[in-house]
Formats: sequence, C-alpha cells, structure tokens
Amino acid sequence: MKHSPHLARLIEALRVLPGVGPKSAQRMAFHLLQEGRPGARALGDALQAALTSVRRCQRCRMLTEDTLCIICAATQRDASLLCAVESPADVVAIESSGSYRGRYFVLMGHLSPLDGIGPEELGVRELEAILTEGGVRELILATNSTVEGEATAHFLSDLATRRGIRASRIAQGVPVGGELEYVDGGTLAHALAGRQSL
Amino acid sequence: MKHSPHLARLIEALRVLPGVGPKSAQRMAFHLLQEGRPGARALGDALQAALTSVRRCQRCRMLTEDTLCIICAATQRDASLLCAVESPADVVAIESSGSYRGRYFVLMGHLSPLDGIGPEELGVRELEAILTEGGVRELILATNSTVEGEATAHFLSDLATRRGIRASRIAQGVPVGGELEYVDGGTLAHALAGRQSL
Repeated sequence: MKHSPHLARLIEALRVLPGVGPKSAQRMAFHLLQEGRPGARALGDALQAALTSVRRCQRCRMLTEDTLCIICAATQRDASLLCAVESPADVVAIESSGSYRGRYFVLMGHLSPLDGIGPEELGVRELEAILTEGGVRELILATNSTVEGEATAHFLSDLATRRGIRASRIAQGVPVGGELEYVDGGTLAHALAGRQSL
Repeated sequence: MKHSPHLARLIEALRVLPGVGPKSAQRMAFHLLQEGRPGARALGDALQAALTSVRRCQRCRMLTEDTLCIICAATQRDASLLCAVESPADVVAIESSGSYRGRYFVLMGHLSPLDGIGPEELGVRELEAILTEGGVRELILATNSTVEGEATAHFLSDLATRRGIRASRIAQGVPVGGELEYVDGGTLAHALAGRQSL
C-alpha cells in the first residue's frame, strides 16, 4: 500500500535505527503520529540538540558534549591504566561492571581493510600520542572476541610494547553462571587453554 | 554510567518508540551519533515534517497529509463496503492481502472504558454519519480477535443493524498453512464452530 509522501519519508528515515526493518519502522511511525505525538516532538528536539552538541572526547573519543568526557575529566581515575574498546557502548558495559577504575580509548570500530577502516580511522595517532606522553603503565585490549577484534588487539599491543608499555587482553572463557553444556566449542577451548592454577 | 546531558536526553527520548527499552535506546543513540549522522539528520527532518503535515483522513481517520486519504479519494473503490479496523497498520495489512476493494474506517483503538476510551474517542459519531449517508451496504468488522476487539465489534454491529445495514465479522479459524497440532484451543474451537459445508 502506498503511504502519503511525508508518512513514507518518516518510515524510510526510521530505518536508519539499528535493527529496525520496514515493518517495525511502519509500526514506529504510526505510533509516533498517533498516541506518541508529544514524545515524537521531544524526540525530534532531542535528536536536533544531540546532533548539534554531542561530539567526541578530545582525549578518548567517547561521545560527549564537553571537551573531555566525564571519565577523562575525573581526577580520581587511575591514569596509568588505559582500556581500548571498540565502541561507546563497551565503555558503558565495562563501567557498569564496576570493576575498572582506569581510563578508556574508544576506537569507534575495528580494523577492517575491506571497508576502508585502517589505523587512521580508529584514532591510532591519538592513541600513540597518549602512550608517548608517558603516564600509561598498561594498555588493556578489550576489543570484541571476533576475528577483527583480535586483529585490532594484536595491532594495538605492538604499539604499546614498542614503547615498553605492558599490553594485556581481557580473558576469554566460560561466562559466569554459564552451563558448560550450552557453551560453544571455541569458547570452551579458550577456557581450557586459559586455565589458572588454584 | 552517567551520560552527558544531551546524550542522556536523546536516549530517554528514543524510548517513546514502541518496543524500545533502555538498552536498545542507548544502542540507537550511539549509532545515530556515530556512523548514522546523515541518517539521523534525515530522521529529525522527516519527523518534523510528518508531525506538522500528517493528520487524519477527514472521512476514515487514516493517517494522511491530505484532506482525504488515498483510499477514500480513489473513485474505483467499492463505496458500499466499509471495513472498521483498530489501527492504520490494519489497513496496510488488509490492503497488502489484495482481497478487499471497499473503504475503511480506522477506529484508532478499541473500546476500553477503564482507559477512558469510549465511542466518542473511536470516532463513532463520524462512523454514524457515514452509515446514515446511505451509500454503505455492509459494515465489515475487522477489529482484533481480543476481548476488547470483540466488544467493539459487537457495539459497532448494533449501529449498522439499527440502520438496516448488514454487519459482518471477519472469520476466526486456523491460519492458512497452520498445522492443527500447534494451533491453540480457543482458535480450534472457533474453527470448528465456524465450519462450512463443502
């Protein structure tokens, strides 16, 4: 069925959202234009404001509207630990684990030569500048456990060790609370290889 | 983790979308502010344009930016058939079945006294006006197969029969391609009760 032009345009535009296909986009558009009108207006304004003001932290490339993000600006964080992650969502995930008090560096992706994403796009130049400054004692590589994530971690670990900085990779293994029966073979192999004495 | 104010506002605003919880909202916000920026701008503009221009069809209450929606404006549709549905998405679903050539009336909900949704909110006054005009021969009740949908259908069928217009309800039964084994009891009961001679 053919929608009226502005409605069709809204449905098409909503598909920019991750995980939203034509059907959900239509459902969202109808909702926004029916009972969701006040919220839709708020969404439009929030989107406008965020697009104008949110940029990247000058130091760690996290999304923020200030020059430095809240973590880089905090004086009580351990500046000798730097944790490289692929995305801002990873920062949020690690922060909510409550187990890390160092700083971050957000790559905004992983090495992917076929997509034209090389070291330059991941801000490696900025990362090198931080490592060269001298305050960092350890670079923790918390990229995803994928082929590209591993390749990126290896590439970055070279940068650190070349400067005499320790590079470490987060552990791979069985998730806490996970039952062995349902864990895939690759993960089990890593869990066995990475076993620790008690 | 505390997000910067504009980012937090965008995440909160995205939750107006149906089926979007805090986690997806965060994922959407990060996407919109990273690689999705051009799309985000387009979304903001489309939302603005739709909110300003999209209203309800004066006749059938479908969402449209014209006075009459594309279906009410079409001269080749059968004006003697009127199909009452709960939402614009239902119009789209019936249209894509390609099996209906009449017109629609979009209730924008169902009777729900506890939520303050009575006949007035469902546009029953407008529906009565259409029925009184005289062109409609049959009112097809295609509200959802829920308790509220059934109640609404019964209420509307009274309006039609009181004016000597035939009221019908879409058939309930086994979905086409469905295996009996996996069909729930209520549906099977309806399928049996509504059996037709061959």
